[in-house]
Parts: sequence; C-alpha cells; structure tokens
Amino acid sequence: MKILILGGDGYLGWPTAMHLTAHGHQVAVVDNYLRRSLGREENVVPLVEVPNLHQRTALWESISGYQIPAFIGDLTKWEFVEEVFREFSPEAIIHYAEQPAAPYSMLNRRAAMLTLRNNLEVTANVIFAVKQFCPDAHIVKLGTMGEYGTPDIDIEEGWLDIEHKGRKDRFLFPRQASSLYHTTKIMDTDLLWYGVRLWNLRVTDLMQGPVYGTETDESMIDERLNTIFNYDEIFGTIVNRFVTQAVVGYPLTVYGAGGQTRGYLNIRDTLQCVHKSEQTPAQAGELRIFNQIMETFSVNQLAEMTRRVGQQRGHVVEIKSIENPRKEAEEHYYNPSYQGLLDIGVEPHYLTDEVMAGMFEMVERYRDNIRPEVIFKGVKWG
Amino acid sequence: MKILILGGDGYLGWPTAMHLTAHGHQVAVVDNYLRRSLGREENVVPLVEVPNLHQRTALWESISGYQIPAFIGDLTKWEFVEEVFREFSPEAIIHYAEQPAAPYSMLNRRAAMLTLRNNLEVTANVIFAVKQFCPDAHIVKLGTMGEYGTPDIDIEEGWLDIEHKGRKDRFLFPRQASSLYHTTKIMDTDLLWYGVRLWNLRVTDLMQGPVYGTETDESMIDERLNTIFNYDEIFGTIVNRFVTQAVVGYPLTVYGAGGQTRGYLNIRDTLQCVHKSEQTPAQAGELRIFNQIMETFSVNQLAEMTRRVGQQRGHVVEIKSIENPRKEAEEHYYNPSYQGLLDIGVEPHYLTDEVMAGMFEMVERYRDNIRPEVIFKGVKWG
Repeated sequence: MKILILGGDGYLGWPTAMHLTAHGHQVAVVDNYLRRSLGREENVVPLVEVPNLHQRTALWESISGYQIPAFIGDLTKWEFVEEVFREFSPEAIIHYAEQPAAPYSMLNRRAAMLTLRNNLEVTANVIFAVKQFCPDAHIVKLGTMGEYGTPDIDIEEGWLDIEHKGRKDRFLFPRQASSLYHTTKIMDTDLLWYGVRLWNLRVTDLMQGPVYGTETDESMIDERLNTIFNYDEIFGTIVNRFVTQAVVGYPLTVYGAGGQTRGYLNIRDTLQCVHKSEQTPAQAGELRIFNQIMETFSVNQLAEMTRRVGQQRGHVVEIKSIENPRKEAEEHYYNPSYQGLLDIGVEPHYLTDEVMAGMFEMVERYRDNIRPEVIFKGVKWG
Repeated sequence: MKILILGGDGYLGWPTAMHLTAHGHQVAVVDNYLRRSLGREENVVPLVEVPNLHQRTALWESISGYQIPAFIGDLTKWEFVEEVFREFSPEAIIHYAEQPAAPYSMLNRRAAMLTLRNNLEVTANVIFAVKQFCPDAHIVKLGTMGEYGTPDIDIEEGWLDIEHKGRKDRFLFPRQASSLYHTTKIMDTDLLWYGVRLWNLRVTDLMQGPVYGTETDESMIDERLNTIFNYDEIFGTIVNRFVTQAVVGYPLTVYGAGGQTRGYLNIRDTLQCVHKSEQTPAQAGELRIFNQIMETFSVNQLAEMTRRVGQQRGHVVEIKSIENPRKEAEEHYYNPSYQGLLDIGVEPHYLTDEVMAGMFEMVERYRDNIRPEVIFKGVKWG
C-alpha cells in the first residue's frame, strides 16, 4: 500500500514512517519543519538534536533498505499539495501535519492565527487533493480527545444518539475545547465530515490523548533514529516532561488541584492504532471516529507515579502545586469510551512503573543536555 | 452607543448602518468590497448599481445629517483591524464581514478556501480585537440557520440539554451544514464560544435564515440609498431571485422535490433583530444564540406564492423542477424554535401576498436591467 505521511518529521510522524515501511508499505513523508522553527523561535530545545528529514530517511535506508521519499514544503500551498499528490499517488494518507501544541496556540494572537490558518488550510487542502487525485484513498487524521473537553456525560466514540422531545437523530458528539489548538481540531473534524458527506470520502479521525515515550521497535535499532523528545511546557507532553523534571531535580508542576483527568497512550500504541486503522479502512462515505487512548490518569496520579519511580532510581522528586494558568476544570467527571481500536486489534501497552523506568533510563543518559530554564514558561490561557 | 458595523457595504450591512444612525447611534462602517469584486469575477450584476460606501455615506449625511465614517480595508489584516478599533473605540460590533454566499463557496477549491480563510480569520481577529481594545463591547455576529442543517429533532435556539446514560449536560446544539460557507459559520460559532469561555466576552450569535426584500424606512427616503439586490443563483437569496425570474419570464427553478423547508425573514426584521439585540446585550461570559427567522416555507410554497402574486400582476409564471445540484434532503422534518427575538421585542413582518407584490413592484420598475443569463449558473454541490 502507498501511504503518504503528512507531518512526517514530527514526534509521531517519523516513527510512523519507519514503522509502516517495516511492515511492508511504500511510504513517502511530507513536512515543512514548522515544529522545528517554532521551537527555535520560542527558544525551546529537544533533549537530543535529531537529524533532518533527508538525513533521517537516508539513515533509515542505509540501515533497513527501505526508501522513504521526502517532500519538504508547505501543505497550505496548493501548488505544493498538487505536486506531492501527483508524484506519489497515495492509497492512504496519515495526516499529522498540524501545529501540534495547545500551549503554543495560547501564547499570543500571532501564534493563535498561525495555528488556525495552518491546521485548517492543510486539512482543507488534503480533502480537496483526495477528492481530485485519489477519491478512494483513506484519510487517517489525528484529532484529539481535547475536542470533547470534559463534559458531565460519558464520552462516546465520536457520535451520539440524541432523543429530544420524542424524536431521535445521531450527531457528532458535542465538542467544546479549552484551547485554540483543540478548537482547530474540532473544526478539522467538521471539515472532514463535510468532505465525507459531500464527496463520499473515507475518513478515520483518531481522537488521541497525550502520548508518552520515544521507544519503538525501529528506534531501538539505532539511537539516531529516535524521534524528537521535548520536555518544555510548550511542546513536551506531560509524562515526558515530568520524567525530565524528576531527573534534573525540577519540582513537578501540578496546575491547581491536579484532578485534571485525561486518557494517555504509549507512542508504540500510536503506531499500532494508525497501522490498524489503515489496515481496516473506513468505508466510502464513512467518518469513523476512534478514541485513541489506552487508560486514564489524573495529573496527581502521574505526578505520584513519577515521584515513586524517580525515587526508586535515586532522584529527589518534589511535587509543587502552582496556580493554574489554564482555564479548565481541576476536578471533573471523565468517562470516555475507547473500545473501537481494541476491536480492530490494537494491543495496549500500559504505563507501568517499569515502562516509566525505561523512560527515566533514556532521559538520564542525556541528563547533561537538559536546560532547566526551558521547562516552565508560564503560558497563560487567556 | 458607538456601533461598528463590519461588512457595512453589504446587502444587510448598509441598511443596518442607516437604521442605527436613525435610531440615535454613532455608527462607523468597515468593508473591503469583497462581495462586489467576487460578483464582478463571477460576472453577476445586481438589479441596480449602488454607489460605493464613501458615496453612500456622503449621500446619507446630506439627506439625514448623520455622519458615518467608512473604513475601507481587509479585516483579515491585523494592522487594519487595530487601526479601526483604536480609532473608533466601539461599544458594540455588528459582524457581517463574511463571504456571504453558500453557492459561491461551492464553486471550486479557490472559492472554498477564500471563504474559509476570510470568514474564520475575520472572526478570530474580531475576537482578539475586542479582547484587546474593548473587552466589554458586545459582539453581534450574523450566523445562519444552515449551521443546524435539517436534523430529525426539533431545532432549539443554539443550545441543547442532553441526557445520556443517566447524566446530564448542556451543549451547543449539534450542527452539520450542507455547504462550505455554512460550515465556516459553525466554526465561527465555535470560535466565539471559545472567546466567551476564555475571556468573558459578550456575544450574540444570530442564526439567520434567508432574507428577502430591500425596502426599509431609510431606503424609502431616496432610492439611491437602496441596498444591493442580487437575483443570480450565487448571491441572490431565493425570494428575491424568484420574484425577478417571474418578472422576466424565467421559469422558477425548483431543485428536486422542492420540499426543502427553511425559515425566512424580511430585511426590515434583520434590522429590528440586530437593533433589539444590541439594545439588550448579552452578559459578560454569555454566548446568547437566537434563531433569526419569522416563519418557515418550503421551496414549493415560495414558488406557488411567487406564481400566484406574479399572475395577479399579469406575468406568465412557470415553475420548473430541475435535478438538484445540491446535496440536501428534499423532504425532511423541520421544526425550529424562534421565540428569543420576539421575547426581546421584535415585531415580525410576514411574507404576505401584499409584501411580495411590493417586491414585484420594485423589480418591475427595473425590468430592463435584468440580465436573464446571470440567473442560473448550475453550481454543483460537489
């Protein structure tokens, strides 16, 4: 199968590219290095510098024998989109090509507008490109659990049957997000649903929770194949950040009461979910939505776990509650359903003490690289 | 009260500007003539050429004594937005500044992207400008009934209480639209709701149905003050279009079965609704949603009424069903609630035979201007 990965240089895009070639697919990657430039602009650095996409694909080819053509360019530009789709003719598209950080989108107006413009225009262009060049191709889009927010009812997988005044209909599950980034993902879903209804596209929208870890079967072959690992407040996801803070003796920053509960998953499971979704595509005219999480934790639970595992490894780990810079409920009901991906064969990796110890081991190896001053930025929601 | 009207050159914007000055407000208008240029590009012409915004405001001042400063520029550009907000310091904003035509948004990819970009970026800029320059100002935004689509349950005014598995919460009413234009309005509502929750803005979102007519108290003073009247498929709303088709002997084009039911209102009621909304502003932190329609008709009912009134005036009016170029239900349940605006004092004008006869009278006066070849374009949804 010919699979085009948009955002193939990212935290998830690059491991996905290696993984899918290792599983027999013909893969091409597209990226404009947006995440790298935003990181430079905001003066945050990853734990380890990673090679650029041409270097990575060359390295992967030299090690595995698999070739991955890399297109470097901006998918908000139609002439570039056209070139990529004409040249590669994908049968499936994995769409990660978005400004991926909620805190970045909250920095200021410019960052918000960049997020809005990039995420929506790329998604719209992808829809138009598939319609024009490969209407039968399957779009696998990364959404976010954050689209749902924290409603006081159970969260279903994308859809909800509603009975109102004695009549019934089925709708997209109600969504309201707490950051501009998450709001653009709601809009992406609306655009995809529009494309599905109007043009019979096949779409899988994966409502993903925060991902942790870096290790995958392919990255284990050579550490230069590792994905980017951020530990700053803007681009670092919470578990990756907490582990790094513990290693460098920076108190774990819990926002407010710490009861914020979310669904999480191991990076290995992102690869599995995307792979399984691609193997069992949505039907023509179907918007299939899966909630892509494997278990839920509150921030307090993650902090406690990080402290416990950190202490076992000889770190002094402090937990510090700070005034919440975000507008969010600090204690709330949270009961999401996440059965769909298990039903198509995903086998979860859970966040055990042992798995977290593995993350500690990696971060400890690069301890000298950590710049504590980039960890906390105090980005205010509003 | 200082009221800023965005899109003040449009079909509704200009009559609103005159109306609000006549009711004692200090008004400024902003426009970039987008609708005029798109009309030129698509080779559609209004029934009567209207003066530009500087000419209109000068004329209105010479007649009424009321001054209306006009800012000509593009509200997707922040430097222009800043200039307008700094200079005028509005206490209320009426936001009509959107690409207003569903069929235009369906013409092709470029038109779709223009609609997406313009509508979302203007709305986002308005939110950021209010937050920065006048956080207490009331935003009155024109949405559309099309955001709801045609669900199989009763349509409430913006919000829905949902009970699910024994728990309850209140959400934005589920929305799914049948054109890209309408989809951008769904996204606008999401952006506004985000601004309300994050920054305590006050917002009224008016879910308007198709508007008909041109006559208002102010336009009756001098016909040069009339608003633009389009009768083409792209920019002309259905009643205006049908009346013109009847006058020029062009069969009334009913798409498919003609059971498509929508809510309609007289342009006089748009002015009333906006005026009353502005007089009783939303609370800080409130997204207030009204369904801005006064009655519902199916396409068949409108066609029959146009034939009846046209025949009484001596026209030969034919009704012709054509294959539906749109993706929409041609027969469907439709039961929207529209009580909120009546509750704040709006007094409806209904579409009686007499009112339609008044529209015929106006169009007949300009009969020689009608170019039948612009009426039907056959814009396909998809």
